[in-house]
Amino acid sequence: MTETVPLTGAAPAAVLRDEAREIAERLVREAGVQPRLVVVVATEDESTAWYVRSITRAAAKAGIACDTVRLPSNAEAAEIRKQLAALSDDPSVHGVILQTPLPPGTSAADLAGAIAPEKDVDGANPLSLGRLAAGLPAFAPATAEAVVSLLDAHGIGLAGRGVAVVGRSTVVGKPLAHLLLDRDATVTVCHSRTADLAAATGSADIVVAAAGRAGLITAAHLAPGAIVVDVGTNPTEDGGLTGDVDARSVAGRAAALSPVPGGVGPVTTALLLQHTALAASRAVAGHQ
Amino acid sequence: MTETVPLTGAAPAAVLRDEAREIAERLVREAGVQPRLVVVVATEDESTAWYVRSITRAAAKAGIACDTVRLPSNAEAAEIRKQLAALSDDPSVHGVILQTPLPPGTSAADLAGAIAPEKDVDGANPLSLGRLAAGLPAFAPATAEAVVSLLDAHGIGLAGRGVAVVGRSTVVGKPLAHLLLDRDATVTVCHSRTADLAAATGSADIVVAAAGRAGLITAAHLAPGAIVVDVGTNPTEDGGLTGDVDARSVAGRAAALSPVPGGVGPVTTALLLQHTALAASRAVAGHQ
Repeated sequence: MTETVPLTGAAPAAVLRDEAREIAERLVREAGVQPRLVVVVATEDESTAWYVRSITRAAAKAGIACDTVRLPSNAEAAEIRKQLAALSDDPSVHGVILQTPLPPGTSAADLAGAIAPEKDVDGANPLSLGRLAAGLPAFAPATAEAVVSLLDAHGIGLAGRGVAVVGRSTVVGKPLAHLLLDRDATVTVCHSRTADLAAATGSADIVVAAAGRAGLITAAHLAPGAIVVDVGTNPTEDGGLTGDVDARSVAGRAAALSPVPGGVGPVTTALLLQHTALAASRAVAGHQ
Repeated sequence: MTETVPLTGAAPAAVLRDEAREIAERLVREAGVQPRLVVVVATEDESTAWYVRSITRAAAKAGIACDTVRLPSNAEAAEIRKQLAALSDDPSVHGVILQTPLPPGTSAADLAGAIAPEKDVDGANPLSLGRLAAGLPAFAPATAEAVVSLLDAHGIGLAGRGVAVVGRSTVVGKPLAHLLLDRDATVTVCHSRTADLAAATGSADIVVAAAGRAGLITAAHLAPGAIVVDVGTNPTEDGGLTGDVDARSVAGRAAALSPVPGGVGPVTTALLLQHTALAASRAVAGHQ
């Protein structure tokens, strides 16, 4: 039994927030422009409200304005698209996030096509995903990028290594596969229909759990010494969060594991702020 | 030693061409519109010229008009983009292909952003790739789709099976990974930096070779009974084509292998025509 190192997100998140704050302060000083993020919400969901408040607080600390636009939880696709287009056209807005869950019958990826790519700080527009895949400049979805940032911050190399990504969502699994390929990892994408999940993950150097199923990954899924990143944020009965990895089971078998909360989450939020600061910086440079 | 079944493309290609021709004949009859494909070429490359002639011949047989727009092999990005935008705006054009190779210093994916998504019959616009990845309607790159069509035509299932894709290009490997995930395969993307290629491919039920290296895949890379699709089209000294798979080596070990030429190639060309016919059909429906 070796000790399982916690891949904590606090330190890399602080670095990213500092970077965002430095850019924000420079833009205010030199151009009189404060970076501004707008979160579009069309749900009454409590955990979403909690998450949006946490982004707003983190933005304030980084010197970034953060507003919320609330639409009814039964808003129609056309109404949401119109709002996103208006924000895309508003020069005082630098970053736009479309928060999920969305009203029934609407598609997040389809709606996010209305977010201008240069303001798409959470990489939700399919054009951003396509540009990412094609190796062209684009903002990656913050959660996917956070996985890579967290590994980088802890000195874990990716080139030539085998990475199993468990989960094939448009917001995490698929864009993460492209980010990892860009870093020369050999990438296997597994999912609910994978015939033998333990076989697929058991030969990987690094396992990323992004399936949205509490406790899915156990010691039986890991090669000894595997590095595990837990992207899961499953609500617990007592109002807390738990990951996709059974931390007790993998302790001693995994060489490292990112905690939930406190791993990928804070890095994700910090990346949204850093992306917004970068978007504002580019907008200011473009107008000079 | 079992016999290795050839996964030939002639029959599925004929089905797709027939489908394209039926649509084309219906459009001429009912709307007086002939589907029209335009291939933009900015190279003096001989094998490209050969390939474009073969598309033109196949289009003629399917009742689809096919024109070539020739730009100088030192054309600037802005000139190519302007041409693609003009074709995108031309209502008499239903499909636009930007042929590679392109002038040095230009990026195919970047330029293809100027092709209207509804005319992007070879899925080259990054928006098409992103929509494909997000599960939204879009034309897939014809070569990537041809791999799936060829397997379908030969009754080879994908759900729950392990597929190793060798090659991570924007035109084949990456979009193919998304098409395979959509079909519930477990997908591993390998490439030139993969540490142990034989280990990565050796546990797969299906291996797709799309690396652009003649003879890369040998019996040592395959589990006994693996199904192998060869996307390689490497020129031989005598003016022919050879694949990425060493056919002699894998004979008897692979359960099936697509030949080069005669496997993925004819299906790719037929899909370009089918996409053009579908694009024309949608354009006509949109104007009614």
